[in-house]
Amino acid sequence: MRLIVQKYGGTSVGNPERIRNVAARLIETQREGCRVVAVISAMAGETDQLIKLAHDVSPSPTKRELDILLATGENAASALTAMAVNALGAKAISVTGAQAGILTDRVHTKAKIANISAKQIQALLAEDYIVIVAGFQGQTPEGETTTLGRGGSDLSAIALAGVLNADACQIFTDVDGVFTCDPRIVSDAKKLDEVSYDELLEMAGAGSKVMQSRAVEFAKKFGVDFEVRSSLNLNAGTLAKEETASMEDVVIRGISVDRNQAKLTVDDVRDEPGIAGRIFSVIADGNIIVDMIVQSVSEHGTTDISFTIHENDLAAAQELLAPVVKETKAAGLIAKSGVAKLSVVGIGMRSHSGVASRMFQCLGKAGINIHLISTSEIKIAVVIEETDVERAAQLIHEEFGLASLAPMVSSVRPLA
Amino acid sequence: MRLIVQKYGGTSVGNPERIRNVAARLIETQREGCRVVAVISAMAGETDQLIKLAHDVSPSPTKRELDILLATGENAASALTAMAVNALGAKAISVTGAQAGILTDRVHTKAKIANISAKQIQALLAEDYIVIVAGFQGQTPEGETTTLGRGGSDLSAIALAGVLNADACQIFTDVDGVFTCDPRIVSDAKKLDEVSYDELLEMAGAGSKVMQSRAVEFAKKFGVDFEVRSSLNLNAGTLAKEETASMEDVVIRGISVDRNQAKLTVDDVRDEPGIAGRIFSVIADGNIIVDMIVQSVSEHGTTDISFTIHENDLAAAQELLAPVVKETKAAGLIAKSGVAKLSVVGIGMRSHSGVASRMFQCLGKAGINIHLISTSEIKIAVVIEETDVERAAQLIHEEFGLASLAPMVSSVRPLA
Repeated sequence: MRLIVQKYGGTSVGNPERIRNVAARLIETQREGCRVVAVISAMAGETDQLIKLAHDVSPSPTKRELDILLATGENAASALTAMAVNALGAKAISVTGAQAGILTDRVHTKAKIANISAKQIQALLAEDYIVIVAGFQGQTPEGETTTLGRGGSDLSAIALAGVLNADACQIFTDVDGVFTCDPRIVSDAKKLDEVSYDELLEMAGAGSKVMQSRAVEFAKKFGVDFEVRSSLNLNAGTLAKEETASMEDVVIRGISVDRNQAKLTVDDVRDEPGIAGRIFSVIADGNIIVDMIVQSVSEHGTTDISFTIHENDLAAAQELLAPVVKETKAAGLIAKSGVAKLSVVGIGMRSHSGVASRMFQCLGKAGINIHLISTSEIKIAVVIEETDVERAAQLIHEEFGLASLAPMVSSVRPLA
Repeated sequence: MRLIVQKYGGTSVGNPERIRNVAARLIETQREGCRVVAVISAMAGETDQLIKLAHDVSPSPTKRELDILLATGENAASALTAMAVNALGAKAISVTGAQAGILTDRVHTKAKIANISAKQIQALLAEDYIVIVAGFQGQTPEGETTTLGRGGSDLSAIALAGVLNADACQIFTDVDGVFTCDPRIVSDAKKLDEVSYDELLEMAGAGSKVMQSRAVEFAKKFGVDFEVRSSLNLNAGTLAKEETASMEDVVIRGISVDRNQAKLTVDDVRDEPGIAGRIFSVIADGNIIVDMIVQSVSEHGTTDISFTIHENDLAAAQELLAPVVKETKAAGLIAKSGVAKLSVVGIGMRSHSGVASRMFQCLGKAGINIHLISTSEIKIAVVIEETDVERAAQLIHEEFGLASLAPMVSSVRPLA
């Protein structure tokens, strides 16, 4: 019998009606001849609500207690889902992360999965139960509740699919899958049938928040194929998998946009060991996340170091860097806000040359100025004016023919 | 070092500010030189909210899942309380019912405590932790979460106080203690310093819903003294304890009022074995709770059977009984709504005669008609017109001098 792991996010179980819909879907899957494990997130808004309560009683909530508090959201949602399945005449049972055998390290609020002992789940599946697992949580060897970090239910599902050797892992969400670009930006964006783990990781890092990166990394490490699809309709979604030769035929898989970025340049700084480290340790100490980093060629012993951060962090970063600029005798600190990052991602870049120049020419012809360029093996990212970014995304989408991509023939079909 | 168990109800932890107040109180108790165990209920309204959700996804929620769902309310509140204590610079840790060692039978939603293994709590107390226990819950020998029925946190606290051999058990609530009568009815009602378990049980059965009856029964069985007091001020509360000789000096401890009652009389029914059983099994099958039952003296082989129910159940009860009246050839069914029950309770009745006649005379002089009388060893209950009940309570309160009772000298003083 096929074994399928389905994960439902907070929106999918956001109210009683949606929980009943999920229950119906689980039963349908079972009736199609599958053993079913469902991983359930907290009802939409619940986790935020609990975090707010925690901060209302404590300026810095004890992490052990925060884990106990947050885990209640998934416990409640999974119990409700099990009830809803039972109410429809099938047989379901809810289990906590601990009961599901998910063993983690002791790092509260962002624990890593150390091991999964799936005996309990397998015993329940053998008794024909639909097993409803509270996502996002596990326990330490001492039996303390831990949580896996924001979006950790994706990780729960993929890890369980891996250890159970599931025939399919479906991540249900409120979008139809992974798109060539955000359809709110590019109206003829197409849903992808397939995406490689690496592409999905680069897209996630570039603003397409479909999946938690750690979950995708875990899937890549253990070779767990999974499908991202909508819980609101029956459409097939996007299958994420190890790349295949045929995937390289497509040069660019998708375009991601990150808005509200700011660029900082430390101008004419001495090109000496330790300078970059000095700059970025100051920024890191201020809990500011740095995205792109570009260092220009050294001339006469000096160089420019540019990087992007979220616009909201700009003032803090400038203040933190002022003494460093002085200390390192740099010429100055140039700040530029109102910019956005546009990334094109595709494993096809490895075997197709000229992608970058084609992209730059496309932007140049449209009079769109590029402030910063950064490339990886399968991604080209540029920083441009935020006011240009929608037009740029549309032009590049068209240039690379993303709207007219024929659906790829996939060796592993997503489950209908 | 003294060991104290404190229980805080849902109102006492109803919002972040109140949780912080509870935390401050726990720390104060510890600083007075006590080891502290706190039993915490779900935040006010939370349990009702969860029950509503359950009924929104299922017409009859699976009891196992309901227990998992409801237990999240206490888990969250106890984690929040522990955070709040930690935020104030003391050391607290929250534990579930299971971690607290509360072992129950397998009757989900109204489990009975089978055993408590307090090793874990004792180890944590030895490390100077304020131990915050999620109330209302336990686990089966198989590790399944169970709950102890509505108000079960009282039971958790009293059972833990018993097994830990605590020096004091304090039940914090939103009232100052147990009163001679509801102060909304009798303005000069007095808070009692002491009450015996039996009196409290009779008062609870008679409409004074201060404590869950099962918790009081448990306290009586294992001789656990406990104090009912307010979490909103520092006043001493009411100490519930095994009765002492001096307690009998007070004839009546208190007056309870139950409104919205209805009286049903099956008139002129054959006085034969099985008839009463027939009547009340029909009522029980309709899930209607019967309170007082009075059967009059048999004359010419027939008798009247009267009983009281909640007014809301009257129509259903009449419908259920109609065929029984016919079948048993009774003369008819007489219904009377708009009545109330007034009970006077006191262990002093055992050694003081004439209490009933004094009470009836008091009512008679005021022209208050009595529809039904029922007595136990320490309680006299009468059914009267609801419009008379406030006046009746005031008159009897005065007749027995309840407002002017000198505070009793108690051998065990409530903790200040």
